[in-house]
Amino acid sequence: MIVVVATNYLIPEKKQEYMDVVKKLVEETRKEKGCISYVFNEDMDDPNKVAFIEKWESKEALDAHFKAPHFVELTPKLSECRTNREINFYKEII
Amino acid sequence: MIVVVATNYLIPEKKQEYMDVVKKLVEETRKEKGCISYVFNEDMDDPNKVAFIEKWESKEALDAHFKAPHFVELTPKLSECRTNREINFYKEII
Repeated sequence: MIVVVATNYLIPEKKQEYMDVVKKLVEETRKEKGCISYVFNEDMDDPNKVAFIEKWESKEALDAHFKAPHFVELTPKLSECRTNREINFYKEII
Repeated sequence: MIVVVATNYLIPEKKQEYMDVVKKLVEETRKEKGCISYVFNEDMDDPNKVAFIEKWESKEALDAHFKAPHFVELTPKLSECRTNREINFYKEII
């Protein structure tokens, strides 16, 4: 299993535009094979810091996600709404 | 619900000592009231970067966790084994 924590730092004025894209991305991604969980979160201390926390069955499932039509179509729109991002890939130990 | 992502950057030579403490902390924490999940993860690109990814039912449950005897006893030992840490509190949006 692979755990992904993808943090995005948003442009405040573009947050609504960003959220409209996120809704579609979450809806489509959750239908993907090997997607165990895919949750969009907001930092409790900073509404413009958000994080996707995801669980994937395998590297193959995650790689397929990055090539999925909705991912390829929607993620460029997300990048227009943020100043920065950080993505971490984890494996569960305990 | 509150989601916690607590990242620790380890002193390599102290990793085994750190892991011994983590095992006890995870075991005890999972017994706590309001602990939905409490998972210890390792960064796939850096074995000395680790992250607790946690889900708590409420702020009250998380506050009780920070006062729990095992937490108070064990976490100082973790801090001896790391160079840095970052803790983020999230709320689930979608």
